[in-house]
Amino acid sequence: MKLNGLPKLLRVARGDEPAELVLTGGRVANVYTGEWQKTDVAICDGVIVGLGDYAGPRLSVADRYLLPGFIDGHLHLESSMLTPRELSRALLPLGTTTVVADPHEIANVWGTRGLDYLLAGSEGLPVDFFFMLPPCVPATLLETSGANLEADDLMAYLHHSRVLGLAEVMNFPGVVAGDPGLLTKLALFPQGPLDGHAPLLSGKALNAYRLAGIGSDHECTVLAEAQEKLRKGFYVMLREGSLAKNLADLLPAVTPASLRRTMLVTDDSHPEDLLLTGHLNHLLKKAVAWGLDPLAATTMVTLNPAEYFHLNDRGAVAPGLVADLVVVEELKEFRVDKVLKNGNLVVDQGKLTAWRETAPKSVPISSINVRELVLEAFSPPATGSTAKVIGLIPDQLLTEKRLLPAPIREGRLAADPSRDILKLAVVERHHGTGNLGLGLVQGFGLRRGALAASVAHDSHNIVVVGASEADMLQAVLHLVKLGGGMAVVADGQVIADLALPIAGLMSLLPLEQVATAYGALQEAYRALEGKLPDPFMALSFLALPVIPSLKLTDLGLVDVDRFQIVQLFGPD
Amino acid sequence: MKLNGLPKLLRVARGDEPAELVLTGGRVANVYTGEWQKTDVAICDGVIVGLGDYAGPRLSVADRYLLPGFIDGHLHLESSMLTPRELSRALLPLGTTTVVADPHEIANVWGTRGLDYLLAGSEGLPVDFFFMLPPCVPATLLETSGANLEADDLMAYLHHSRVLGLAEVMNFPGVVAGDPGLLTKLALFPQGPLDGHAPLLSGKALNAYRLAGIGSDHECTVLAEAQEKLRKGFYVMLREGSLAKNLADLLPAVTPASLRRTMLVTDDSHPEDLLLTGHLNHLLKKAVAWGLDPLAATTMVTLNPAEYFHLNDRGAVAPGLVADLVVVEELKEFRVDKVLKNGNLVVDQGKLTAWRETAPKSVPISSINVRELVLEAFSPPATGSTAKVIGLIPDQLLTEKRLLPAPIREGRLAADPSRDILKLAVVERHHGTGNLGLGLVQGFGLRRGALAASVAHDSHNIVVVGASEADMLQAVLHLVKLGGGMAVVADGQVIADLALPIAGLMSLLPLEQVATAYGALQEAYRALEGKLPDPFMALSFLALPVIPSLKLTDLGLVDVDRFQIVQLFGPD
Repeated sequence: MKLNGLPKLLRVARGDEPAELVLTGGRVANVYTGEWQKTDVAICDGVIVGLGDYAGPRLSVADRYLLPGFIDGHLHLESSMLTPRELSRALLPLGTTTVVADPHEIANVWGTRGLDYLLAGSEGLPVDFFFMLPPCVPATLLETSGANLEADDLMAYLHHSRVLGLAEVMNFPGVVAGDPGLLTKLALFPQGPLDGHAPLLSGKALNAYRLAGIGSDHECTVLAEAQEKLRKGFYVMLREGSLAKNLADLLPAVTPASLRRTMLVTDDSHPEDLLLTGHLNHLLKKAVAWGLDPLAATTMVTLNPAEYFHLNDRGAVAPGLVADLVVVEELKEFRVDKVLKNGNLVVDQGKLTAWRETAPKSVPISSINVRELVLEAFSPPATGSTAKVIGLIPDQLLTEKRLLPAPIREGRLAADPSRDILKLAVVERHHGTGNLGLGLVQGFGLRRGALAASVAHDSHNIVVVGASEADMLQAVLHLVKLGGGMAVVADGQVIADLALPIAGLMSLLPLEQVATAYGALQEAYRALEGKLPDPFMALSFLALPVIPSLKLTDLGLVDVDRFQIVQLFGPD
Repeated sequence: MKLNGLPKLLRVARGDEPAELVLTGGRVANVYTGEWQKTDVAICDGVIVGLGDYAGPRLSVADRYLLPGFIDGHLHLESSMLTPRELSRALLPLGTTTVVADPHEIANVWGTRGLDYLLAGSEGLPVDFFFMLPPCVPATLLETSGANLEADDLMAYLHHSRVLGLAEVMNFPGVVAGDPGLLTKLALFPQGPLDGHAPLLSGKALNAYRLAGIGSDHECTVLAEAQEKLRKGFYVMLREGSLAKNLADLLPAVTPASLRRTMLVTDDSHPEDLLLTGHLNHLLKKAVAWGLDPLAATTMVTLNPAEYFHLNDRGAVAPGLVADLVVVEELKEFRVDKVLKNGNLVVDQGKLTAWRETAPKSVPISSINVRELVLEAFSPPATGSTAKVIGLIPDQLLTEKRLLPAPIREGRLAADPSRDILKLAVVERHHGTGNLGLGLVQGFGLRRGALAASVAHDSHNIVVVGASEADMLQAVLHLVKLGGGMAVVADGQVIADLALPIAGLMSLLPLEQVATAYGALQEAYRALEGKLPDPFMALSFLALPVIPSLKLTDLGLVDVDRFQIVQLFGPD
């Protein structure tokens, strides 16, 4: 509470002066006591001054439910492909008023320049964006990232008012092993919070990870895993996003006793989901449909993240907290009627009311730095009769390693659409090294053409898949021209594209146009007889060498189980 | 977690090196999930490194219950009349390993010198003493305290590693009214915690108090009061000490949802209670006897205060937390079998094992500064025929204002033991001002003699009650000679005394001797036909002008309901 405004707020709280706004007749979620309270709520200067009978201009929320503004405790805003400003325009009508973002993606491309951009670009928006500092840039040494963040680089951000702690410490083997560089980064925030990321870690290794100070985990996929992590002192973030959907499996871990240590988070929210499905309001709906008490679910997106992230000024409807409030008509759909941010009515009847169309802030634009490419690079000479093929598994990020007869034409590696074996390449795009990793993938179903994207976790080089080498080359060159993005090319024509000029990850366009363009990309893929529901999502994870079993980076084919680069041809 | 010791701890956590100690076979309280876990607990370098199967020297706690060390979130250590070292010797066998102390009493006598003494005197003890800075010294302007603490004085302690926040903000009307000096003190800890003290405050005034940032309250006496405070975002400390006993009334406020915002605290623990009854272990016993789940009760003295006070290194049995552990045989009596502090077995079979009898640290000694007193001062000329008499109410700090025929002898105010009307005086003892407040009190039942004490809330002047002016004078002079303390005098003889040379509040003696001496004082009082169960406790609150209705300070008789000094003789 700032000292200079306090005397006035106290006068209003005491009832000596009228409030600026009084929300009347609502049923107020009390996340402290688990009760619905019939009470009015008085607001002044963006702050909740009191519960009870107050004088002042009235806004009836009679018989509606009044909830604290929702807090997403773990979100990669790059996944929305939107600027922070556009993302906030998308989130507000869904009731999300605070986001704790992990800028891991943009940091892998731009390093501190990426952090600077997101901090500046999220300043003064009607959604509050807080940030965690990414400790694992680059994610591995088996790929070429755009940047490298050391503890010294992160140190410069320690005292930024919107930097809260350390983002997901993905290199959990490094923490468990006591990697000195990592421990130095953990020590930057002696009081935490240090977010974890440790899929399936358990037993003694999990003890070590917690001992090092890691305080949360959002990677649980199995109930017993979530329960063990809770017992050992982790806050467990139950994740349900566009990508990974773990809520149904994990919900039984939420008990009256453990509730306080749990949250609902999205991790990744794609633009079409934000437009059509929702955000945390959708997670509340799901949690309640699957049996959780509505007020308990609400606590998981309000008080619990506020406590974990030390955001003491929010997370409940109580005197002295910021007036971030969500009004819903019922507790089943959680369809948002009104949203107040800092006491201002910014959403009414589910629509933004007070959006100011200001000129966008200056946005740094990418230059994609790719060394001159030649067509032959996509068709190297065959050096064996069998090849390791990446096998997609439907709806999973895991892939299979398949040893198949190699498709060869005129002594060179070819694609073979008849067996659904396509070519896959990862082209280094940060430093112009000319690195090009080449592989084969089964499961995209393309009969012709190519798909390329500069969104390719975690280093975000250009990844391209295709039945035609010429179309693959053209797709890559088109992305270079766009300054990053996504494209579908067939028979020498660009059929669909989406420019992502902000680090090759994010668009300058509004949500609706991004969603439309993304839909058009998927349509174009289907016109090429592709069958995957979201081919660009599948593509973006083929370059991530931390998820088993076979992946491809700009340095070559990675056998993730052995964590090393392997030859394309032949068994090992 | 300190960086330099971490690599070794990680090796032990991983199981690569044996632990220093493994507690085997216990049922471990999991305050995160509300479960009893059958698991071993491994310890190294004072830290819990892991739960599970570990190699290392074993200590069986088979079939016993293993709890986190208890944390008392609100304790005036001066009430024990013990040095911090002696107090820690008393607390450890009761399972209390951490105390958050409010040094309000010593600060009223010695100001920053008192804070310095307690901080230094509690350094390196086997109980961890943390401190809150007292914001209301002096408590009122209707008395003369030994010191005055302004925001600037407190500022010097902000960054002390064992200073956590602001102690009970007793001047709640000042906070509600927006008193600038008080608000400046609140602003010293923008992230809190700011402890509250607001008996029966409710409605809009309570909203204002919370709005100002006050985060807790330990003064609830009525269930509805506790419930309102919880709903408005206060942590409610359910108090059950030697003095005030509110647990039974407030316990229904603790629900599965509100549990996280509640604690059990003692506020004041007198030496005989520490010796005979217990401390937080006794509160656990009571809470469970009155229906609370044992693990929920445990959470109120472990995880909850740890969270409220941001003591992130303790409050549960989990990897990375300090190895403060309590072993009990059953969950009804909570009789303590073993205690580990920082991984060392300091209590076994309920007895201290590892107490090192070191030379006590240097302790500053009081000089009681009283101007020369004359006997006539206790017998002023009568100026009316009726007098306002302080009427004791059994078992309460509240007093009644009784207008009675004044006892007069030879034109001067007298005592009248036949009507149980005794003389009461408060003698200023800090600055040698010569201030002497004189009044009458009904309820002590003395037939002769006098009782005096330098423990007299909150300014701790010398308070003396008696049937004989000469004995009153002698009792005061004896306290001056002792450098502060308590005494019973009759017929010119000192019958019993207890020296409290540390600020007139605390003894240099061990617990057992203090308790014995205190018992002897009570015996001596009873020999004078007194009937009160604890006359010195009753006496010590007669000078506290914030509790209704009629009190006495060195400045005179205080009508607390009107908050002003009034004449002894006649109606108003």
